[in-house]
Amino acid sequence: MQAAAPDEQDGAKRDAFERAKRVRLMLFDVDGVLTDGRLWYGPSGEVLKAFSAIDGLGIRLLLQTGVTVALLSGRDSPAVAARAAELGIVHVLQGAEDKRAAFEALAARLGVSAAQAGCMGDEPIDLPVMRRCAFACAPREAHELVRAHAHYIAGAPAGGGAAREVCEFLMRAQGTLEAALARYLA
Amino acid sequence: MQAAAPDEQDGAKRDAFERAKRVRLMLFDVDGVLTDGRLWYGPSGEVLKAFSAIDGLGIRLLLQTGVTVALLSGRDSPAVAARAAELGIVHVLQGAEDKRAAFEALAARLGVSAAQAGCMGDEPIDLPVMRRCAFACAPREAHELVRAHAHYIAGAPAGGGAAREVCEFLMRAQGTLEAALARYLA
Amino acid sequence: MQAAAPDEQDGAKRDAFERAKRVRLMLFDVDGVLTDGRLWYGPSGEVLKAFSAIDGLGIRLLLQTGVTVALLSGRDSPAVAARAAELGIVHVLQGAEDKRAAFEALAARLGVSAAQAGCMGDEPIDLPVMRRCAFACAPREAHELVRAHAHYIAGAPAGGGAAREVCEFLMRAQGTLEAALARYLA
Amino acid sequence: MQAAAPDEQDGAKRDAFERAKRVRLMLFDVDGVLTDGRLWYGPSGEVLKAFSAIDGLGIRLLLQTGVTVALLSGRDSPAVAARAAELGIVHVLQGAEDKRAAFEALAARLGVSAAQAGCMGDEPIDLPVMRRCAFACAPREAHELVRAHAHYIAGAPAGGGAAREVCEFLMRAQGTLEAALARYLA
Repeated sequence: MQAAAPDEQDGAKRDAFERAKRVRLMLFDVDGVLTDGRLWYGPSGEVLKAFSAIDGLGIRLLLQTGVTVALLSGRDSPAVAARAAELGIVHVLQGAEDKRAAFEALAARLGVSAAQAGCMGDEPIDLPVMRRCAFACAPREAHELVRAHAHYIAGAPAGGGAAREVCEFLMRAQGTLEAALARYLA
Repeated sequence: MQAAAPDEQDGAKRDAFERAKRVRLMLFDVDGVLTDGRLWYGPSGEVLKAFSAIDGLGIRLLLQTGVTVALLSGRDSPAVAARAAELGIVHVLQGAEDKRAAFEALAARLGVSAAQAGCMGDEPIDLPVMRRCAFACAPREAHELVRAHAHYIAGAPAGGGAAREVCEFLMRAQGTLEAALARYLA
Repeated sequence: MQAAAPDEQDGAKRDAFERAKRVRLMLFDVDGVLTDGRLWYGPSGEVLKAFSAIDGLGIRLLLQTGVTVALLSGRDSPAVAARAAELGIVHVLQGAEDKRAAFEALAARLGVSAAQAGCMGDEPIDLPVMRRCAFACAPREAHELVRAHAHYIAGAPAGGGAAREVCEFLMRAQGTLEAALARYLA
Repeated sequence: MQAAAPDEQDGAKRDAFERAKRVRLMLFDVDGVLTDGRLWYGPSGEVLKAFSAIDGLGIRLLLQTGVTVALLSGRDSPAVAARAAELGIVHVLQGAEDKRAAFEALAARLGVSAAQAGCMGDEPIDLPVMRRCAFACAPREAHELVRAHAHYIAGAPAGGGAAREVCEFLMRAQGTLEAALARYLA
């Protein structure tokens, strides 16, 4: 995708935009997507995770437009639950060894099909979900195999704007971005 | 502004300089302005915020010239209060859902008009205040909508010199920078 | 190596690839290799170390192919033990003033010769081990003396993908990478 | 210095090298020199400071050659004392409002003249000491006024190799570097 000719790039962008229009459920991986992948360890294991205020505001805005947001993490960290609670993310799937099964159970519970789902991931373990979702995206730092399967690759860094960029891309595609930002221009 | 022709850029710089001369009250957003936007979370929520010694010294210098400094944050974090206390910032407006109302109440209390106020922000939620202030500025990492409304965009990174750059810009415009630095050259 | 002519570079790459085929025991230094070298200090000394989820997954994958992984650190940090335990790394040599002796004792215990060992380091103190191992590698940020003795220099940053890159390089050389990733493409 | 012509640059380098030969006491500022200037705050103030293992090893090597190392900080942080103790730095001058007086008292106590002293700083408040020392250096991120007064500007980042680079520069000038590194090539 990165070595694509300009025409292919344009086509890929239009395709991603069309796919983004249909998303009713957006899943975000945590480490390497909502963070830059760093894990702060103390003597008894992981103690801190660094999220981004910029990404947080994007997720809040997306939630306000009625899109459901879920976190889907292979690890299990209480910091993720705390961050999700603050952002108003109800669906937090942690410690999911089999991310595909976790995704399918959630989608079924919510009555959302894969054709209405999007997923942002950075590692090969995210591919089983990404490949089933209508809209697959990745941060620029993602594994090359993941980038090869993404419809959209964020230009902003993971854990510092990549998720925000995707939230605004979805809102632009769905025609909700302008209204969301207009309130700040009154 | 970034794609402006050289002439327009020069004009914008001169305009920002003139605006900076009038600032008696300077407001700084916190996350994404005095930090790089990262929020360190532990099991029970946010626990750490990373400020910059470089920005801190700029704020101290600005305060010594008689300009009033205030922090204006949509979030509520005890780390911000601790940092403000250390820097000698008396006015700390946290958890301000409506930043415009918080700003107007502060300005009224201090007897400062919007024509004498400056604001540095990075997110659309900062725009209602920025657009009312005589001098609006932003870090280079700010949201594009915010950059479009800024009179001055810092070249140094947010949370690592952006606020310092603005403090020195204000002091240069107000003719107080040289004296502030001269004591170190004695 | 960095200023080498294209032909020399190709030769060096092929040589590194051949060397990687033989590795049954892979040693990683910690600070500056599995981290970016930063040490977070509180009032009573070092309290935090920032590892990478990306590197962690690479080590897990490499372990699953049957290669033994060991950590070899001159410092002594409980955070390292916690991280190693989580990744399933059994051999953790910390506080090793004499890294060469620690390596030789481990290799003897495991019945692995230096010709079957690899080592990733960033500092001159890592050279006595690196120079004995069949496969020596370094992050791009390593000391110039270390880079000069490395068969392979990672392009990804230390503490953010450098070790992952080496793990995948080993797996590619040993013909185990494709199968390890294939499960995510099913 | 940065816009200097090649000849001037060569002259400046030779001058810095000559100056480095005479240094028996080397002072390092902390924030912005041994760290990247970031201060991690919790509810009750600063709690963490991020040092670099790379810089630490440089300071250890320099100490082993008989050069005295001192830390000179305007702030007061227990993390600095802990880091200094670990590195074997005996002279730690913290909370020094007047850095020049603190330096002169230390130099007198040690029987070292300013002509035998070096100082690495990044802020104008470091200038009164830097301008008295025979060898003044700064990280590349230092304030422009400080860079203008430095004999040597490090290419490596502050808090991630800048101090290491200066330690090796001193050792190279004093003819002690080769022997210090040779032990790792045995």
